[in-house]
Amino acid sequence: MKVENLEDLFNHTLEDIYFAEMKLVKALPKMAKASDSAALGKAFMGHLEETKEHVERLEEVFKMLGRKPKATECPAIKGILEEGEELMTEIKDADTRDAAMIAAGQAAEHYEITRYGTLVSWAKLLGHKDLAAILEKTLKEEYAADDKLTKLAESKLNKEAA
Amino acid sequence: MKVENLEDLFNHTLEDIYFAEMKLVKALPKMAKASDSAALGKAFMGHLEETKEHVERLEEVFKMLGRKPKATECPAIKGILEEGEELMTEIKDADTRDAAMIAAGQAAEHYEITRYGTLVSWAKLLGHKDLAAILEKTLKEEYAADDKLTKLAESKLNKEAA
Repeated sequence: MKVENLEDLFNHTLEDIYFAEMKLVKALPKMAKASDSAALGKAFMGHLEETKEHVERLEEVFKMLGRKPKATECPAIKGILEEGEELMTEIKDADTRDAAMIAAGQAAEHYEITRYGTLVSWAKLLGHKDLAAILEKTLKEEYAADDKLTKLAESKLNKEAA
Repeated sequence: MKVENLEDLFNHTLEDIYFAEMKLVKALPKMAKASDSAALGKAFMGHLEETKEHVERLEEVFKMLGRKPKATECPAIKGILEEGEELMTEIKDADTRDAAMIAAGQAAEHYEITRYGTLVSWAKLLGHKDLAAILEKTLKEEYAADDKLTKLAESKLNKEAA
């Protein structure tokens, strides 16, 4: 895709985050399965359901733009998940592994927060108010998912790992 | 490095963010040079100076832990910068390119925010209060750098690009 103006850049970034969300749909069940803490496993599974909705919302956005959903390989989310997966398989101690998975989950959330934040801002500037509202809904859920992981980490898991 | 406990994971993550900061020291001057907006170029150069300080602070943290500074390849920051660089060289329209570089800069900031956030929390749990204070100083500057890019984007560049 040739990027010539902000509309193209918006479309390109939609494809990037669509790729990222679909990668997360695959990663989250593995992270839940590897969780030692039941609360953490539940948090990952809960966010899986949200992530599936985020995929659907993006498909709606593509449709509203008269486009077919398309994913563009996103090296950033691949790198984030690769790092997390490496630690997940390597760390034998259950509490330390949980702490590493929380950190990986938060890195993924922050990637999504920055991308959705940018998309909302561009959607508004491009006059796509309806799309901005949909993307903002997801943005809020990503912030909430990140907060939930922070609270889980601080209240329980990190203390156990230390 | 074998990760067996939270102290190891903390050390591993220090090496990861040390790699990321050094990558940014190389990337920021290129981003400044490619900026069309003088304000954006100045923001990138200003953050370059901060980033050099962040590298020094990490070296201090390694020293306080009785370790030599060590960088571990971080696929996440590589992916983030790779995406940004691709757009930077590909986009011909100056305002659209500036918008893409702001987005790339914010993705890098968010990666650092999540990593430093985790490191501060782990440092406290591990009883490294002095290290936590140093890392928290950097964390605050990363938040401020991200805010600055948001403001630049919203006040000027995105509007031009649209």
